[in-house]
Amino acid sequence: MCRWAAWSGSPKYLEEIICDPEHSLIDQSRNALSCKTAVNADGFGVAWYGEREIPALYKDVRPAWSDPNLLQIARHVRSGHFLAHVRASTGTATTRDNCHPFTHGRWTFMHNGQIGGYDKVRRRLDNMIPDDLFRDRMGGTDSESLFLIALAYGLKQHPRAAMARAAFEAEALSKHTGSTPHMRFAAAWSDGETLYAARYASDAFPPTLYYREYADGVMIVSEPLDQARDCWMEVPKGHMIEVRAGTVRQTAFLSDEVPA
Amino acid sequence: MCRWAAWSGSPKYLEEIICDPEHSLIDQSRNALSCKTAVNADGFGVAWYGEREIPALYKDVRPAWSDPNLLQIARHVRSGHFLAHVRASTGTATTRDNCHPFTHGRWTFMHNGQIGGYDKVRRRLDNMIPDDLFRDRMGGTDSESLFLIALAYGLKQHPRAAMARAAFEAEALSKHTGSTPHMRFAAAWSDGETLYAARYASDAFPPTLYYREYADGVMIVSEPLDQARDCWMEVPKGHMIEVRAGTVRQTAFLSDEVPA
Amino acid sequence: MCRWAAWSGSPKYLEEIICDPEHSLIDQSRNALSCKTAVNADGFGVAWYGEREIPALYKDVRPAWSDPNLLQIARHVRSGHFLAHVRASTGTATTRDNCHPFTHGRWTFMHNGQIGGYDKVRRRLDNMIPDDLFRDRMGGTDSESLFLIALAYGLKQHPRAAMARAAFEAEALSKHTGSTPHMRFAAAWSDGETLYAARYASDAFPPTLYYREYADGVMIVSEPLDQARDCWMEVPKGHMIEVRAGTVRQTAFLSDEVPA
Amino acid sequence: MCRWAAWSGSPKYLEEIICDPEHSLIDQSRNALSCKTAVNADGFGVAWYGEREIPALYKDVRPAWSDPNLLQIARHVRSGHFLAHVRASTGTATTRDNCHPFTHGRWTFMHNGQIGGYDKVRRRLDNMIPDDLFRDRMGGTDSESLFLIALAYGLKQHPRAAMARAAFEAEALSKHTGSTPHMRFAAAWSDGETLYAARYASDAFPPTLYYREYADGVMIVSEPLDQARDCWMEVPKGHMIEVRAGTVRQTAFLSDEVPA
Repeated sequence: MCRWAAWSGSPKYLEEIICDPEHSLIDQSRNALSCKTAVNADGFGVAWYGEREIPALYKDVRPAWSDPNLLQIARHVRSGHFLAHVRASTGTATTRDNCHPFTHGRWTFMHNGQIGGYDKVRRRLDNMIPDDLFRDRMGGTDSESLFLIALAYGLKQHPRAAMARAAFEAEALSKHTGSTPHMRFAAAWSDGETLYAARYASDAFPPTLYYREYADGVMIVSEPLDQARDCWMEVPKGHMIEVRAGTVRQTAFLSDEVPA
Repeated sequence: MCRWAAWSGSPKYLEEIICDPEHSLIDQSRNALSCKTAVNADGFGVAWYGEREIPALYKDVRPAWSDPNLLQIARHVRSGHFLAHVRASTGTATTRDNCHPFTHGRWTFMHNGQIGGYDKVRRRLDNMIPDDLFRDRMGGTDSESLFLIALAYGLKQHPRAAMARAAFEAEALSKHTGSTPHMRFAAAWSDGETLYAARYASDAFPPTLYYREYADGVMIVSEPLDQARDCWMEVPKGHMIEVRAGTVRQTAFLSDEVPA
Repeated sequence: MCRWAAWSGSPKYLEEIICDPEHSLIDQSRNALSCKTAVNADGFGVAWYGEREIPALYKDVRPAWSDPNLLQIARHVRSGHFLAHVRASTGTATTRDNCHPFTHGRWTFMHNGQIGGYDKVRRRLDNMIPDDLFRDRMGGTDSESLFLIALAYGLKQHPRAAMARAAFEAEALSKHTGSTPHMRFAAAWSDGETLYAARYASDAFPPTLYYREYADGVMIVSEPLDQARDCWMEVPKGHMIEVRAGTVRQTAFLSDEVPA
Repeated sequence: MCRWAAWSGSPKYLEEIICDPEHSLIDQSRNALSCKTAVNADGFGVAWYGEREIPALYKDVRPAWSDPNLLQIARHVRSGHFLAHVRASTGTATTRDNCHPFTHGRWTFMHNGQIGGYDKVRRRLDNMIPDDLFRDRMGGTDSESLFLIALAYGLKQHPRAAMARAAFEAEALSKHTGSTPHMRFAAAWSDGETLYAARYASDAFPPTLYYREYADGVMIVSEPLDQARDCWMEVPKGHMIEVRAGTVRQTAFLSDEVPA
């Protein structure tokens, strides 16, 4: 399991989420609370949208708290739209290419969860990815597969349905060939304008997912960054939110029904 | 392109090949001579056979000359059978999982060369790898594919024919879908008892491959470690050698004919 | 604070201490029990004595659990005398040169503790180190200073008194210019034949230090590797042990009196 | 020896110096021309001035060409004032803390050169650094010493004289205790508003130093980034330049005379 946070709103220094809050992402990398693994120190990453059309991506394998370059970037880079992640490996190697977020053109994706029996379904998942996307497969995680499969299902045109379909098909594969729990899924993805996040599980234990509305933007997180519990809204299982221009819209993401 | 060296014989400190010779592997990582790329500094690796049944593996992404841990290991580890490699990426990322050698159980593989148009044939190559081997796919290189495909073709039972078949099929795929040069191949592989090395190309420019017989063992290299040119025997294109108990046997590896 | 373990006895694979025990050093790097900091993930190191006169040294900045090279070395290297350490920085940077153990010729040193107000006394500490040793100063920790100062005081001839004097002088400096607690000290050092370990503090809270005698050797640890609590002997504050040829001798290390 | 480049002018993406030119800094890290060492792959660094008062600093130990994070930062960060460096170690370790630039508050420093017999004068150099600056000494290079000594001599008030005095005193120390060549020096330093660069040697072989005036700014480099040789002005030995608001002023830096 992993921890992540994303922001859409007025430009903020990355450190305002990664380093500064009481229960910042760096604090969560040592002491996550609502998480199976308290230590999330198998790498980190941040993708931010700036002046260029495609996002910038900085990620590495060290614990977030011990990388002096991350602290520099967090202090000096300001962005109105960014996604940040600290990783606890569920089995795949601790390499930069296995760290989140993943990017493709304007699109960014990060994930907390797992596909049950990934070792047994990995090849079939990869086979859902067409050649022109497969050449961008860098590492070996289930998360990167999900992103590339969602891109194959038309993420850029149908950001909600394509991701739901990717999760659904991966779950179906796990039910056929893998093991339980078949799907645990809390993910965020973005094109730099709209920020999406969804929560799902094939059983009763979806990873946590919260958001909070501020005067100047919306934050989405794995777990709250402070103790103002009333301010953090929980996204219900099977639902997703999308944030655009400061407005949050909540919709169904995936249930036992096949997505359209 | 890359540079590599392997030893089968009396136990030697790794540094006797990696660091000490006039044109050691570390020297080749800065100043390779018979190589398209003079600088081979996109990672390194060494696999050695010791007291345990499976080989030990140390590899990383830094230039061989600047990794203080490599120098320590090279000075203190002694082995009668080892393979060492310095990498120059031909396009895939500089990550530990893309560094050579690769291992599987008792088996080790390292490679200098390329498959033409790898981006276009990567998925089909991966699909030659059965599920039980594919779960061990760590990185994204053509070299790791070749090793896993050779394992799928029975490398452990037929160390010569399986590797020849892997190279042949990969070349066929490149001829069908990829680009020229379809195959450049100089590789070494081993089970800790017999050391194999082969040289091949689909055109007139196979990567260089030499070996030298000493009183206490045999060394196989991409390029000679010293200027005693008469002592280094060149392996002809399309041929391979196998070294067991100090004896070198040269045989055909792959020609335009389909391997048996 | 940090965690460490050392072995003197029959050759053991490093993994028998680093990886395998219930509360192995890798486990302590995530979940230390008797330690201010539960996570000791700011680098690790191991020094082992083998066939060569000087020890081999492998250390790096990643958490011990996530470095695949460490796992390889721990599995394949066997030694009858080694020191291993996982680090939690008390302020200085997470760099390889700040990781323990430190070595000088045949000698090795590792440390858990701190000098109070190190920032204020650092230069004076450095000035206790003569030029011919100062050129070997690689990083910026108080621990490395203590080792070089002990060497300056004749560690190689007087392994007990020189270290006690180094600790004493550093404490005196902290009392003069630094801050409380002036000295917390649990360290091990060795020349490959005799293994020394000492426990001291300027206040009532010395870092923990235990040893255990086995049929084939002696282990010294920051905290026990398993729950066989009765087997682990605590070294009293102000005392040290030395282990040679399987025998443990306990003596005074440092009290409020000036060492001889 | 090392290679470096600095820019003062309109905001530029870092990649416009680091990656894009014909003979960019990344190209120089593989193929430096007017340099003793063609390969400058023992780390890199870049400091840039942005919205905050202090500069941002990104540096690491890998070759500049193989660090994917550097390429991301170079593509996405834009600054009107930055300093970038690729390192070839002259003996000290390849660690992040030994990479340039070095920073202190608003001030940045990077260097190509060496102090003759540094091993013998290192401690005396360190003793020129007062306690309140010495606590910021992170690594072990002569370059970092020079910067801290210049700060001790009042760099922030007297940016020209203090650096000249640091170079002069270090040279004097080398003449007294070190070895030839006593001083080779080509350095740049800045407070984010004025960019300074100086060239000096105790013998006839000062490291190269050039600058070029563009319509929108001034670039200073170790060696020209392209073949427009007529556009690059050489700074004479013993001289320095300062660039402020697009204007270059050349003055004496250091001769055999004691600086004021």
